[in-house]
Amino acid sequence: MTTTQPDLTQTVLDACHTLAGFTTTPGSITRLFLTPPMHDVHAFLEDWARRLGMTSRVDAAGNLRCRWEGTEPNAPTLYLGSHLDTVPNAGAYDGILGVVLGFALVETLSGTRLPFALEVQGFSEEEGVRYGASFFGSLALLGTAGPMLDLRDAGSQTLRDALTEFGLDAEALPSAEIIGETLGFFEIHIEQGPVLEAAGQSVGIVEAIAGQSRLDLTFTGRASHAGTTPMPLRRDALAAAARFVVAAEELARSTPGLVATVGMMDVKPGAGNVIPGEVRCSLDIRHAHDEVRLAALPELLDSAKQFASERGVTVTVMPKMEVQATPMHLQFRALLHQAASDVGLPHPELVSGAGHDAMVMAARMPSAMLFVRSPGGLSHHPDEAVLAEDVTDALALGERFLHLLAAQSGSTGGKHGL
Amino acid sequence: MTTTQPDLTQTVLDACHTLAGFTTTPGSITRLFLTPPMHDVHAFLEDWARRLGMTSRVDAAGNLRCRWEGTEPNAPTLYLGSHLDTVPNAGAYDGILGVVLGFALVETLSGTRLPFALEVQGFSEEEGVRYGASFFGSLALLGTAGPMLDLRDAGSQTLRDALTEFGLDAEALPSAEIIGETLGFFEIHIEQGPVLEAAGQSVGIVEAIAGQSRLDLTFTGRASHAGTTPMPLRRDALAAAARFVVAAEELARSTPGLVATVGMMDVKPGAGNVIPGEVRCSLDIRHAHDEVRLAALPELLDSAKQFASERGVTVTVMPKMEVQATPMHLQFRALLHQAASDVGLPHPELVSGAGHDAMVMAARMPSAMLFVRSPGGLSHHPDEAVLAEDVTDALALGERFLHLLAAQSGSTGGKHGL
Repeated sequence: MTTTQPDLTQTVLDACHTLAGFTTTPGSITRLFLTPPMHDVHAFLEDWARRLGMTSRVDAAGNLRCRWEGTEPNAPTLYLGSHLDTVPNAGAYDGILGVVLGFALVETLSGTRLPFALEVQGFSEEEGVRYGASFFGSLALLGTAGPMLDLRDAGSQTLRDALTEFGLDAEALPSAEIIGETLGFFEIHIEQGPVLEAAGQSVGIVEAIAGQSRLDLTFTGRASHAGTTPMPLRRDALAAAARFVVAAEELARSTPGLVATVGMMDVKPGAGNVIPGEVRCSLDIRHAHDEVRLAALPELLDSAKQFASERGVTVTVMPKMEVQATPMHLQFRALLHQAASDVGLPHPELVSGAGHDAMVMAARMPSAMLFVRSPGGLSHHPDEAVLAEDVTDALALGERFLHLLAAQSGSTGGKHGL
Repeated sequence: MTTTQPDLTQTVLDACHTLAGFTTTPGSITRLFLTPPMHDVHAFLEDWARRLGMTSRVDAAGNLRCRWEGTEPNAPTLYLGSHLDTVPNAGAYDGILGVVLGFALVETLSGTRLPFALEVQGFSEEEGVRYGASFFGSLALLGTAGPMLDLRDAGSQTLRDALTEFGLDAEALPSAEIIGETLGFFEIHIEQGPVLEAAGQSVGIVEAIAGQSRLDLTFTGRASHAGTTPMPLRRDALAAAARFVVAAEELARSTPGLVATVGMMDVKPGAGNVIPGEVRCSLDIRHAHDEVRLAALPELLDSAKQFASERGVTVTVMPKMEVQATPMHLQFRALLHQAASDVGLPHPELVSGAGHDAMVMAARMPSAMLFVRSPGGLSHHPDEAVLAEDVTDALALGERFLHLLAAQSGSTGGKHGL
């Protein structure tokens, strides 16, 4: 089915295994932004880059950036990769698999130059754990990471000072911005969900990164005695909130592609024999198309108000986050479909419900993503896994994608945006 | 409307006000079982008893028991009263209003003897706060409080040692048991709910003390990513639990007299962007008729299983408490209706959703309760209140009840059980 040697799959898995050992917590994988094990990650990958004949640097944002130049000195650049940081107690593949596959794809070239340069990215920060804000690495490539420098971590250290401690110079941050001609960005990432596994497929082409709205709702009724308050005289905040949770599930189930989640719920006073007087809960809704999400949201909030009002309960809504949907680049997706077809792989499209660096990069250049099946749908968990044969498929598809892009770039003179 | 002098209403309210000052926490009302302020309560009420010509004693369970003997030395006894202890940060009426009204009712007799003795009870313990178990006072009158002596409070002191420290003798506990002929027990208590207020009525006759079932349910699904898990692939424990909360409300609303409450809900892991993997919640259902409650409970638990199963979620049920319903004595209730009618008061019946000493006493003798309207339905709260005119009504009704009972007892020779 593929032209890639099985040895390269093993190289990829071995690299992920070795890199998983670079952690601040021996026995588990925890590698936050700008922490010491990140130096070991850089050293390991820079060594690989050197063996491949690539140039490498760690930019002022802590991103590892390794280049394989194209046939011409001023050829546009295709950026390839993902992030190097992890959540606490993470798995061995989220993010770093995409970086490792970047090097492996350069390795498939066996020294051949393409009509464009390849720059493999190991983004320094994507998870948002240390500073409560995400995408510092990719935002630095766009020149928009500056406002994050004054954020403080749990130990009150600013991001600026953490850069210094890591051996970098925050003042040089603008130098991380991309200045040359760009061809696009291609990120391979584990799916972090159960869709490919349920469909029995190894890889999938991302149609879009979903837009999302996150809100907190507070239902306020009246706490009273569970025994002495008859049903018609209750103002039960939990009954109203529960009806809302059911409505959110119903609407999402009946709206293709919509997901709606109430993940947090805090019930007060929280005693078995007291009718709840106040319930605070979250709402998280996502869809690939903003118009669907933006139609669903007011419908849900109206229903929350109605369920509350029917019970003498009031509801207040606090918006927390709003991210627009990011469609992946149409021509890149077409090329990925072609590549999959060429190497004999099924090529389903799916939506990414989680944010990724490709969402940031898409603001500057054509961007695409390939998902690799997540066994059990697991991620952010020590049992996070990939199947060796899926890695082989991803490598074959990626290799073919580069060749198709090379053929097309050659024929179009390597113009920006395909 | 009533024959009772307004002065006696003021006496009752003044007494409640004075007694509220006997607290372990100046500025708020906290008077737990066997704590020092209980001595002051006893002294205040014994002084009143003395002025009325009653005999008094504090029994081995710490109950204050003041007697107004009947026309004959061996006349049966009507027990009157309620409890003296409070919850922490309580109001001034829960329990103690019924004790104070007992003395006030003796005062309405102006020295007249009845064909039965009256024994005003100030039960030492009803709220269950100090030892996590309720009704020590009334259980002692039935001779069944012994097993509670080895319970320990938060400071690890046994109930036995607390009796000694209070100046009592735990070995003498059996002497608290009622031995003579009993006529019945009559308790006046604030409603602690909103029913009388909603009906615009001052007092109500208790039909029954509701039976109750309390359970904990645990819904176990699978925590997963709110963005990457499509609706059909979720195992959302909160969606299942919320559907159950809605079903409990629906069933209780459509079943006259049934109340069902989910008061506690704990959602894990509890992050806005993670589908809940586990939800633990309480269920509290109550009804005046056990057959209604015992039909509703399996229906609800079956629905919980179905809602769980529809979502790939499992549910386990842990019974916590089961109390049978206690109907109030039919002939006492009839006499209370007659008394209300005689003094020109409306006389609705209502169910007590909370437990009371009358529930314990009913195991030994005919028992009845009169509820006094609770403004705002409030109890166990510093703002707990009664209206002066409602106290006047309760006094008038109680006074008339004693006279009707006297007439009937005289005509039947004071036989036990009317």
